[in-house]
Amino acid sequence: GSYSTSSSSKLLFRQLFDKESSTYTYLLADSSHPDKPALLIDPVDKTLDRDLTIIQELGLKLVYAMNTHVHADHVTGTGLIKSEVPDVKSVISKASGAKADIYVEQGHKVWFGDLFLEVRATPGHTLGCITYVTGDASDQPQPRMAFTGDAVLIRGCGRTDFQGGSSEQLYKSVHSQIFTLPDDTLIYPAHDYKGFTVSTVGEERRYNPRLTKDEETFKSIMANLNLPYPKMIDIAVPANLVCGIQSKAT
Amino acid sequence: GSYSTSSSSKLLFRQLFDKESSTYTYLLADSSHPDKPALLIDPVDKTLDRDLTIIQELGLKLVYAMNTHVHADHVTGTGLIKSEVPDVKSVISKASGAKADIYVEQGHKVWFGDLFLEVRATPGHTLGCITYVTGDASDQPQPRMAFTGDAVLIRGCGRTDFQGGSSEQLYKSVHSQIFTLPDDTLIYPAHDYKGFTVSTVGEERRYNPRLTKDEETFKSIMANLNLPYPKMIDIAVPANLVCGIQSKAT
Ligand SMILES: [Fe+2]
Ligand SMILES: [Fe+2]
Repeated sequence: GSYSTSSSSKLLFRQLFDKESSTYTYLLADSSHPDKPALLIDPVDKTLDRDLTIIQELGLKLVYAMNTHVHADHVTGTGLIKSEVPDVKSVISKASGAKADIYVEQGHKVWFGDLFLEVRATPGHTLGCITYVTGDASDQPQPRMAFTGDAVLIRGCGRTDFQGGSSEQLYKSVHSQIFTLPDDTLIYPAHDYKGFTVSTVGEERRYNPRLTKDEETFKSIMANLNLPYPKMIDIAVPANLVCGIQSKAT
Repeated sequence: GSYSTSSSSKLLFRQLFDKESSTYTYLLADSSHPDKPALLIDPVDKTLDRDLTIIQELGLKLVYAMNTHVHADHVTGTGLIKSEVPDVKSVISKASGAKADIYVEQGHKVWFGDLFLEVRATPGHTLGCITYVTGDASDQPQPRMAFTGDAVLIRGCGRTDFQGGSSEQLYKSVHSQIFTLPDDTLIYPAHDYKGFTVSTVGEERRYNPRLTKDEETFKSIMANLNLPYPKMIDIAVPANLVCGIQSKAT
C-alpha cells in the first residue's frame, strides 16, 4: 500500500513483497523534505535491484538499511546496499549480536527528514528482535504504523525455537510493547503467507489465534508447533550477522 | 496496504494477494457508515474463505462483488460469494458479455455508504475491461485510487492477444482514461509479478516501459510478446462469463 498523511510532513510509503521467502520489505521516505531521505526495513538481497530502482525513480535518497532482527529465512539486502550505495548506514538492535553501522535500543528514535521511527524491544522470536513504530506526535503519520518483524504476524507470530527465542519473552514483548499501542495502529509484519498485507493492533488483540490466549496456553501452542528446521538458516544467519555479506560469512 | 482518509467518510481499505495467480483482490468499505457497507474488487475463488473471514471480523456488510473484466487466469470468487452471501450483487461491465446482477458503463457510479467508485471504460486487454476510480469530491479519499485491472500494471500492462484484446484500443484507453487522472492517483492493478503493491499515475506516465512509448512502438511491442497460451483460460473464461459458477460452465 501507499499513502500520504494529512500532516505537513508527507510520508511516502511502499510495501514490497518477495514471493520466494514471503518477506515484506518496507520503503519509507519524507517526500516533503528537500532531500527526500528514505529508509528500507528488512530488505532482501534477491530483490535489491527492484528496490534500488524504485528509490531512484522516486528521486529518494536512501539513508538507512534497517533490520527488525537477524533473519533465518533470507539474506538481508543490507550488505549489498552498503556496497552499492556507500553512504547508507545499516541499523539493527544491539541485542541482535549482528554487525551494523548503528545499534539501536528501546526508546531510540531513527529520524528521516522530519519523520521518525521509535524503537521498541520485542524479543522472543529472536533475542534481538525490535519493532519500529512511527512517531507519536501530531506531525507524524496518523494512524501510527508498527513494523513488527516476526514478533506479530497477521493472525500469527514468529516461531520461538531457535536464535535465542523464548515464547515467554515473546508473549510479554507483544503484550507490553505492541498491544499497548492504539487499536488503529497499522501492523506491517516481516512476512505473510496468506496474502494479507496489513492488520491493526485492534484486530490482532481480538483475532490473533495465538496471542489472544493466556500465557500458559500460548507457551504450550509454541512448544508444539513441530516446525521443520529452516532451510535457509545455516546460510542466512551467518551472513546476516555480518550485515548480509555472504562471502564474509564463510 | 490500508489507510484512513482525512475526509468525514472513512475508507477502510485492504489489499489481498493470491500467490498462485499473483492476483490482487481489493476490499473497500465505508467504515464511518452505520452499516459499514463493503465491496470486493476481483475476488478469487480459492481465497474466498480468507476474504469472507476478514469481512466478518471487521464487522463489514458485503454488498458488491465486482470484476474489472472476465479474467483468464483465475476463477472469480463472485459466484461462490453469491451462493454464500445471498444479498451480494455481482457487478461487471456490459461490454464484458458476462452474466452479473448489475452492469456498469462509462460514467456510472457505484456507491457504498457515502463513498463511491466511478466507472471508466478501459478496453484493450479485453473488450469489456473497466477501471474503478474513487470519487472526485472533497469527501472522497485523497489521493484518488484507480483499480485498473489488467489495463495498467505496475511498469507493465495486460496482454492484448485474446478475449477481444486490441493494443490500439488499450493504448487509447490508458492515455485517455487513466493517464489523465492526477499524478498522485494511486494505481492498484489486478496483478503484480514482482512484489510491487501500488504505483501512481505520475510514476507510470514516466516509467512504464510500454505505455510511455508512442502508439506505433507500443503496438509493435505488444505484437511481439510471444506469450504462451494461458494455462487457465479454457476453465476460467467460461466460468467467469457466468459469474464464477464453474458447474454451470460445463
Ligand atoms: Fe525471523
Ligand atoms: Fe486479465
